[in-house]
Amino acid sequence: MSIRVNYDKMIAFLTEIFERSGLHKEHAAIVAENLVLAESRGVRSHGLVQVKTYVNRYETGRYNARPDIKDVKEAGSILIVDGDNGPGAAIGQYAMQRTIEKARESGVALTLVRNGTHFGMAEYFAKDALEQNMIGLAFTNVAAPLVAPYGGYTKQLGTNPICIAIPAYAHEPIIFDAATSEAAFNKVVYARAEGREIPLTWALDGQGQPTTDPNAVIEEGALVPFGGYKGYGLAFVINIMTGLLSSACLLKDADGTITENEAGVGYNFMAIDIAHFMDPTDFKQLVDVFIDRMKNSARIDENVPILVPGEPEEARHQDALTNGIEVFPGVESALREVEEHLQTDIRLDDCLQN
Amino acid sequence: MSIRVNYDKMIAFLTEIFERSGLHKEHAAIVAENLVLAESRGVRSHGLVQVKTYVNRYETGRYNARPDIKDVKEAGSILIVDGDNGPGAAIGQYAMQRTIEKARESGVALTLVRNGTHFGMAEYFAKDALEQNMIGLAFTNVAAPLVAPYGGYTKQLGTNPICIAIPAYAHEPIIFDAATSEAAFNKVVYARAEGREIPLTWALDGQGQPTTDPNAVIEEGALVPFGGYKGYGLAFVINIMTGLLSSACLLKDADGTITENEAGVGYNFMAIDIAHFMDPTDFKQLVDVFIDRMKNSARIDENVPILVPGEPEEARHQDALTNGIEVFPGVESALREVEEHLQTDIRLDDCLQN
Repeated sequence: MSIRVNYDKMIAFLTEIFERSGLHKEHAAIVAENLVLAESRGVRSHGLVQVKTYVNRYETGRYNARPDIKDVKEAGSILIVDGDNGPGAAIGQYAMQRTIEKARESGVALTLVRNGTHFGMAEYFAKDALEQNMIGLAFTNVAAPLVAPYGGYTKQLGTNPICIAIPAYAHEPIIFDAATSEAAFNKVVYARAEGREIPLTWALDGQGQPTTDPNAVIEEGALVPFGGYKGYGLAFVINIMTGLLSSACLLKDADGTITENEAGVGYNFMAIDIAHFMDPTDFKQLVDVFIDRMKNSARIDENVPILVPGEPEEARHQDALTNGIEVFPGVESALREVEEHLQTDIRLDDCLQN
Repeated sequence: MSIRVNYDKMIAFLTEIFERSGLHKEHAAIVAENLVLAESRGVRSHGLVQVKTYVNRYETGRYNARPDIKDVKEAGSILIVDGDNGPGAAIGQYAMQRTIEKARESGVALTLVRNGTHFGMAEYFAKDALEQNMIGLAFTNVAAPLVAPYGGYTKQLGTNPICIAIPAYAHEPIIFDAATSEAAFNKVVYARAEGREIPLTWALDGQGQPTTDPNAVIEEGALVPFGGYKGYGLAFVINIMTGLLSSACLLKDADGTITENEAGVGYNFMAIDIAHFMDPTDFKQLVDVFIDRMKNSARIDENVPILVPGEPEEARHQDALTNGIEVFPGVESALREVEEHLQTDIRLDDCLQN
């Protein structure tokens, strides 16, 4: 049986959890908001399932709870930020704000972040561009290789998400946010936890054969890119434009030796200021026309409406705000372990939706 | 039976064809090179099959043979170019050169082109960034709606290609260039011309059902996005970031009326100057390491090598340079119609590979 928890109370609960894990309160609140937003939008792979993992990584020092996040270089329309292996969401929010400031000046700006860590849901950053009448783009490599190249079965690529957020006028904004793998890795983890099989199209086993067994994937298999060789190509270029261009993933030493970076996570954030190209209100009204056009297309199944990017997630989010966020037993028990371990003042039971 | 033609001679032949269609010699040569390069790389949908179409469009005035291509606005790191409905490849080359110049100053630059026309293969533009040690990005909407939204079967989206070109060191550059539809429309046209069925995954018929009949697609069907809802999302955002942001596709009049633009094709070009982020040689060597890693992955089929984006096209290009470009009967007869119609000095027979 799942429980339902209140959105704002969960943010307060998680903020306390991450503060007790050593983070500054401000950073703790950002990480909390990032995970709760993801869970509320149905992006469970990047939501509450991460809490226990994050706490463990801060406590063991694998993530730096008190990082010195700083600009390494600023020139023209670009910025390089060193995240010092700190909380990914906090590094990301800082980097996105700086990207937005720079885009206001020059029309477009690009920030590369090195020494990042898992930043949660990419949308969390790209969406910050929206209220500034900008288009926001957020990409990351994921340090742990999980995805096989097309035609292969060695794990080589991250799930490397692409997020592009575009403001609309009367409609909700367009938020395209997708892993370049057919499925997020945590969807496989969830399937295992819940004793379910996975679709045969998601992943390969240790011998390179498609499998429905989540164990075979987690133990020695690999995810596959979405959409065959095209998704592989996208995952490939995103890995280079995030991990390599930021120096996050591979490093070349002075003597020419090429080594792996320890953390290995890079971000690539862009902002495009619409006002540099046209009146933002005009633009957003055109986006509305475009959205309506899609939604009014002839339907393959009359009972299945045509959606636009971000629409199903927004519907789940609105439901979560009203009715609470559904938390499934595996995640609930992990949260109870964490609150016990950290002896938090706020408890999961305090967060139950009335 | 197909014939084989010489790469350079075909460029000279097509240059004459487009000059006789009214283009400046310089523009004619760019359009010729664009189409011959595409054909030689096996991107037949954007190659010689376009010659007769282009000639017809210049002669009927649908494309402007003598455009006034000009900068509408330049500010910070952005540029807006008006292509005046001229030759797409010539507009695109101009816009990409300007983008590269601006990226050299500011690290990243973004150009939006309005009043563009069919620009051929996106790679033709993005690749120009490579020799400048830059990453090149080229997107376009395709004015004619050909692709249905996920879950629908009304043609609403262009095939909206994405091209990202990344330099390597000892390896050939990475060139990811893909339509966001499962297949390019001209692949369906080719299948019809050659009496072949198409894969059931490419398109829908006029009732929204998957079909293998190219006629059903061309007459009243629609292509589908690649990779399901993820490819749909990409096609959607590319359409907005090219067609709408450039004001190419929809226009808002002063009285608030929203109308379609006549030509409706916009381009979105970006260049990222690697030197702003790290030593370009270091970067390119890291790309080589990354390429080797992919290629050395365990293979699903021992006899099928793992390729990287752009590799199969480059192999075809090298073969075409050595052994000539293969031209199939349908395209051959179209070219013979054009040479007869324009009474060219150079003839297709002059271009045969020795």
